[in-house]
Amino acid sequence: MQKGSLVYEGKAKRVYNTDDASIVWLEYKDAATAFNGEKKASIDGKGRLNNEITSLLFSKLKELGIDSHFVKQISPNEQLVKKVDIIPLETVVRNTSAGSFAKRLGVEEGKPLTRPIVEFYYKDDDLGDPLLTEDHIEIMDLATEEEVAFLKEKALKVNELLSQFFKELGIRLVDFKLEFGKDASGAILLADEISPDTCRFWDLKTNEKLDKDVFRRDLGNLTDAYENILSRLGGKLHV
Amino acid sequence: MQKGSLVYEGKAKRVYNTDDASIVWLEYKDAATAFNGEKKASIDGKGRLNNEITSLLFSKLKELGIDSHFVKQISPNEQLVKKVDIIPLETVVRNTSAGSFAKRLGVEEGKPLTRPIVEFYYKDDDLGDPLLTEDHIEIMDLATEEEVAFLKEKALKVNELLSQFFKELGIRLVDFKLEFGKDASGAILLADEISPDTCRFWDLKTNEKLDKDVFRRDLGNLTDAYENILSRLGGKLHV
Repeated sequence: MQKGSLVYEGKAKRVYNTDDASIVWLEYKDAATAFNGEKKASIDGKGRLNNEITSLLFSKLKELGIDSHFVKQISPNEQLVKKVDIIPLETVVRNTSAGSFAKRLGVEEGKPLTRPIVEFYYKDDDLGDPLLTEDHIEIMDLATEEEVAFLKEKALKVNELLSQFFKELGIRLVDFKLEFGKDASGAILLADEISPDTCRFWDLKTNEKLDKDVFRRDLGNLTDAYENILSRLGGKLHV
Repeated sequence: MQKGSLVYEGKAKRVYNTDDASIVWLEYKDAATAFNGEKKASIDGKGRLNNEITSLLFSKLKELGIDSHFVKQISPNEQLVKKVDIIPLETVVRNTSAGSFAKRLGVEEGKPLTRPIVEFYYKDDDLGDPLLTEDHIEIMDLATEEEVAFLKEKALKVNELLSQFFKELGIRLVDFKLEFGKDASGAILLADEISPDTCRFWDLKTNEKLDKDVFRRDLGNLTDAYENILSRLGGKLHV
């Protein structure tokens, strides 16, 4: 597989073409950003940690019957994935009140929700990724009603599987964000990454935060937290 | 009917008990507020205008088969209404992109939506009345799934009736906010007010704004705009 031209550079990853039109080459960056890019840093090892963790989680999900864009890890900070057009929605699953949910709605952080819920946010940095209702999604032509139903169902299934998996590792899956994309045939695939950048992970016993909130809220060393997650997943950081 | 003690004072109205436990006495104030109370003024005549307009519109809706809490107007700025417990949701119907919808979602103001949509906001001044999804409403125990379905259906029906009614008066009903309450028997009734404080009215030909945006955006004289609406409704201001 040959690495081709840069297609897109996001806040946390670069995307390159390959000599296979159906495959792209992802490079995880060391950049840490929060609050829609207002807070920034470069943290050595972060790209490798998220690449390792995402590779392990997408592989685990595949074992459990959930397909994704993930093809294989090819270096400490790179992986090959199927080429998809990302649907401009952030699909968020929440099990416990935290973050913007707690703040916007006045629900105490840490309070378990009576059932998991799915929220959709419009992937638009200029607008600050606003919360959407299903009507917004439909009239703004971001996805059809059937697609929204599919995303919700898939997100709740991923939540069920990952919540159980992390529980066995002593970790509470508080909430997480998924992205989905469409491949050339129009099929919707789970995409992007699943990492401490996109999930809230709390230690089951101590409630210690093992995710990007460490960076957002200046709670300590980000790589220590991410390495803790990686090591519980049975992985180790390659250099 | 005897006016009793003050029960509640909101931004735009005072609510008093009466000697009938099922009826309260509403007094419309001259206060104008916007941006969650950040912008304030007292505008002579505003209370009377909103009382007259709301009385006419609730009477019109009753003729058209939509019941509300409205009993009767009793003075230029007072009316009697059935006592209800207000459901803490603002039910918003939108026909055309405007206001917070346009700004949050980047949809040009004035663009007609492909179909009317209903949004719910949490009536909580401290939180700034945040947008809610139906899942939020359910898990926060603000209303049941059936109640939400009822509110949506009722709001869309009111929209259908009022849009047609205002069109005949040369006015475009851009969007509006409704509130609902439960009476002693648990029945849900349309409540609060329907006025240029709670609706966006644009002149059909000129797009002139005839609603609270005149105040929010300093577009001219608020009472002129509200009197324009009242006079097209066939009403006049009593002094």
